[in-house]
Amino acid sequence: MFADRLRRVQERVQAALDEALATDPDLPVIQAMRYALRGGKRLRALLVLEGARLHDIPEDEAMPAAAAVEALHAYSLVHDDLPCMDDDDLRRGQPTVHVKWDEATAVLAGDALQTLAFELCCDPVLGARRIDLVAALAQAAGARGMVLGQALDIAAESADQPLDMDQITRLQAAKTGALIEFSAIAGAILAGADDRPLRDYARAIGLAFQIADDLLDVQGDPAKAGKKLGKDAAAGKATFVSLLGVDGARQRAEELVEHAIAALAPYGQRADNLREAARFVISRET
Amino acid sequence: MFADRLRRVQERVQAALDEALATDPDLPVIQAMRYALRGGKRLRALLVLEGARLHDIPEDEAMPAAAAVEALHAYSLVHDDLPCMDDDDLRRGQPTVHVKWDEATAVLAGDALQTLAFELCCDPVLGARRIDLVAALAQAAGARGMVLGQALDIAAESADQPLDMDQITRLQAAKTGALIEFSAIAGAILAGADDRPLRDYARAIGLAFQIADDLLDVQGDPAKAGKKLGKDAAAGKATFVSLLGVDGARQRAEELVEHAIAALAPYGQRADNLREAARFVISRET
Repeated sequence: MFADRLRRVQERVQAALDEALATDPDLPVIQAMRYALRGGKRLRALLVLEGARLHDIPEDEAMPAAAAVEALHAYSLVHDDLPCMDDDDLRRGQPTVHVKWDEATAVLAGDALQTLAFELCCDPVLGARRIDLVAALAQAAGARGMVLGQALDIAAESADQPLDMDQITRLQAAKTGALIEFSAIAGAILAGADDRPLRDYARAIGLAFQIADDLLDVQGDPAKAGKKLGKDAAAGKATFVSLLGVDGARQRAEELVEHAIAALAPYGQRADNLREAARFVISRET
Repeated sequence: MFADRLRRVQERVQAALDEALATDPDLPVIQAMRYALRGGKRLRALLVLEGARLHDIPEDEAMPAAAAVEALHAYSLVHDDLPCMDDDDLRRGQPTVHVKWDEATAVLAGDALQTLAFELCCDPVLGARRIDLVAALAQAAGARGMVLGQALDIAAESADQPLDMDQITRLQAAKTGALIEFSAIAGAILAGADDRPLRDYARAIGLAFQIADDLLDVQGDPAKAGKKLGKDAAAGKATFVSLLGVDGARQRAEELVEHAIAALAPYGQRADNLREAARFVISRET
């Protein structure tokens, strides 16, 4: 069962993250890091571990990479929630870091979570190719990945007209797609294997993930989502839903999931968990 | 001449940093990164290149590491200057990033500069041990290094009484010392050599550097320093000068420089530039 697999990943990744911060001093910034690392779907970690399994890498030997993507993801959320960014008070049903502590602690905790992600990728258990993993993570995180996406998002807010389909696709491919892609190909990188099928898979589910997010924003249950919804419409922001309509967006997401599943053909049945993950991406309620 | 050597390092490191950002899109966040990377003494880059030279690593094969420490340093300055941190308007004689652009751009540019530092450390020209360099940089930057120092600094501001000598030494060893130490030992790491003499050297000049900063804060010329001075005294903050007095602080800094120079004995005359760098640390006016 996919749900059982995901729950098991959640437990194991949480244990790895707890251990990474276990010896650190008891300062507010460390508490804030631990707080920001709790919860979450751990979809990215699952992609890392399943991508590794396809390349015969045991779970223990991929775990630091799975923990690293979750640390990098947590950093991006803490900074995106800041008052000067999206100004969000609620995340995963709890007050955001700058609300629970203060802005200085949130900036610093985010900074340290990014550093932690790179530190985790240096764990010798990941093997001789971990330097390639660091390089790929830096690509996904930097000014051609997540930072580019966030910068395009900020620029869009002060633009005269809403983004078109190409512009939104480019923005989201950078903002959320780059880290999802990194997660899916991490195992192939560590194994020195061809990463093209997993890259193809990841690009499709990354986009489907964002379309599902846009659908949640207009149709979701805030109690289940654990965050404020309807924000994009209120801000007059262009989204996949505003451009394609609810039905068009759902259909596009389903097509992308089918494309992603087809891309996994070279791996046969061993990729069934990744197939389930693709379906999960558009069925989730959080 | 040391001044000539430092000037040449400044030019070469600037060229390496310009090249690293040359192909990126022309967004405000990229402009802000370039802006934050201009100027500076490049003392950390010099330490990297001189430490590499002692281990027979040609300058070209250490340059990405030199650029990386300057990128990491620039990130820390951009975030430290934020309104929620030290709230500084002026840096190196120019408006700080959040003043020239806005807070969102400053948070994002700092984030991307940290990522860039790790990306630069992945440059294959650095050789097979560059993964050790990434690990050491993460240590220097993270919750046991720069982030710890900044967190202790924030905690000190709301503490009931000023820090004592041990506490300030610990804070500064983390906040400014960790990256100076990384810079000095980077060459030894890349060469797989004993890094203890350079570590000893770097710890002494790191502390001397901070004492010189505290002396500049009470005695410096703001026009030359390019930033606001007298801030610590105005905030009632404990510093090496408030604890040791001006003469005591200067004497302590000079002792540390002598200790640093003595630590270089194993390298003979080849370390003369590092000896000059130690003297420069307490004679500088910016």
